[in-house]
Amino acid sequence: MLDVCLLGSGGMMPLPYRWLTSLMVRYNGSSLLIDCGEGTQIAIKEKGWSFKPIDVICFTHYHGDHISGLPGLLLTMGNAERTEPLTLIGPKGLERVVNALRVIAPELPFPLAFREIQGAEEEFLLNGYRLKAFRVNHNVLCYGYTLELSRAGKFQLEEALRLEIPKQYWSRLQKGETIRADGCLYTPDMVLGKQRKGIKLTYCTDTRPTRSIVDNAAGSDLFICEGMYGEKDKETKAREHRHMTFYEAAGLAKDAGVKELWLTHYSPSLTHPEEYMEEVRKIFPHSQAGKDRKSVELDFEKED
Amino acid sequence: MLDVCLLGSGGMMPLPYRWLTSLMVRYNGSSLLIDCGEGTQIAIKEKGWSFKPIDVICFTHYHGDHISGLPGLLLTMGNAERTEPLTLIGPKGLERVVNALRVIAPELPFPLAFREIQGAEEEFLLNGYRLKAFRVNHNVLCYGYTLELSRAGKFQLEEALRLEIPKQYWSRLQKGETIRADGCLYTPDMVLGKQRKGIKLTYCTDTRPTRSIVDNAAGSDLFICEGMYGEKDKETKAREHRHMTFYEAAGLAKDAGVKELWLTHYSPSLTHPEEYMEEVRKIFPHSQAGKDRKSVELDFEKED
Repeated sequence: MLDVCLLGSGGMMPLPYRWLTSLMVRYNGSSLLIDCGEGTQIAIKEKGWSFKPIDVICFTHYHGDHISGLPGLLLTMGNAERTEPLTLIGPKGLERVVNALRVIAPELPFPLAFREIQGAEEEFLLNGYRLKAFRVNHNVLCYGYTLELSRAGKFQLEEALRLEIPKQYWSRLQKGETIRADGCLYTPDMVLGKQRKGIKLTYCTDTRPTRSIVDNAAGSDLFICEGMYGEKDKETKAREHRHMTFYEAAGLAKDAGVKELWLTHYSPSLTHPEEYMEEVRKIFPHSQAGKDRKSVELDFEKED
Repeated sequence: MLDVCLLGSGGMMPLPYRWLTSLMVRYNGSSLLIDCGEGTQIAIKEKGWSFKPIDVICFTHYHGDHISGLPGLLLTMGNAERTEPLTLIGPKGLERVVNALRVIAPELPFPLAFREIQGAEEEFLLNGYRLKAFRVNHNVLCYGYTLELSRAGKFQLEEALRLEIPKQYWSRLQKGETIRADGCLYTPDMVLGKQRKGIKLTYCTDTRPTRSIVDNAAGSDLFICEGMYGEKDKETKAREHRHMTFYEAAGLAKDAGVKELWLTHYSPSLTHPEEYMEEVRKIFPHSQAGKDRKSVELDFEKED
């Protein structure tokens, strides 16, 4: 199960009623954060989630509204006496940018591990999930992210019995372990049915619509995507600043065949995103206006 | 008249119910900010004051909670299409620290003027007031600030008539101008009584009690001073981290003979500063627990 929280839904600058866009995901005792603007640490506190299990912080790019909260968050994590390493993932320049910001957070009681994204796409295996960064199209180098949890096939009792696999190994095989015992080799595929649908989450912000987004978001359970403008006449402005309108985001959601779309990263001038949702749903019916602390638990599909 | 607002009252980290300590002062169409932690720009928005007239930003020191909000504020001021220069004042290292933070705010449509404080005390004449930085005692180089508005003596009508000073020069003399006309030299002291009490505001945070604070805060109309801890048993901790208890701050207020004390920069663990104020007032009766957006208009004294 993935616990997902959109901590903030704004773009450009934090507002009294809207934090900057940031996503926090909890899985199996570990937390991941994508983007960390000014105030993100307060948004985490408001949500009531803990800083302690944050093991990974990813950045889409290094515009201020996506990273300005990092030094403060690092200091707060340091004050909580963290000693475990923290992994930072981001576009080229990661270490340079973070170290510059650390002029005001020079001493931390935990080490930072930098993993700079190489090329147009890169996968990271972390804490039991698969994180993939994919390049998008903004006015600086920028990436979207998908996070996937795979799910093994169902345990085939009949097969286990037929192949006379000792019962003591069943649960280990079910967990994916290969076992060599009593002169025999037992592999998971002997007892597991075909792989089942896992959980897929896609997050992308600060970009024009791209083919890479459709390809990478394909089949996502939840697609969180920037929608800077709801006003239909702002497509030119969106194009100019390399952002998207709500309708462009909905078009991507439709093309990618996702289950649900949440919009985020609203322009500060956009005070009531809900007003535009009826029109947005004509393009993609399962569209929601994201808002601060909008949360969901993504579970594996129920079976018959 | 000085319009004073304590934008936030916390120390160390911003909290959902408490912004980091920062002071904003408006005078004669120009605004000054002292310290700018994460969220200060939101606190300004909540107060309803404008970013536009901010001409000067001062820093007491460069710990994260006093400067982490600077890049975001600069970006927001840039987005508002500011072109007028902005003066930054702070301890040694000012330009290095600010330029490092500007890794995420590299392009601004307005110039920054850096004025690094020299020595233990330095005065700046700005926008019609006198700002003085004075060194305090923290675990890094740190300064307090006093802001003073002086007030000329009262216009002496009898003197102006006695000296036969032409009426057309009276108001210019009253404003402090020296006039050479009709072969005569007219100076303000010819028509003005002795200088009257002005307005004085002192702000200091992140320091142990020092003689420099008492000397510089002497006679202030308002003394805003850190009080990290209200609990009496935390004096050792205060000493260790180079902070103050409420009682130490009240002692300074008493010694400096100020009119009013506002405490600020509370430890995140201190949720109800008011609880300790009865005890604090035994030391200095005109003590107030500062809180976010606590404001006052400081006026020249009424005359008989």
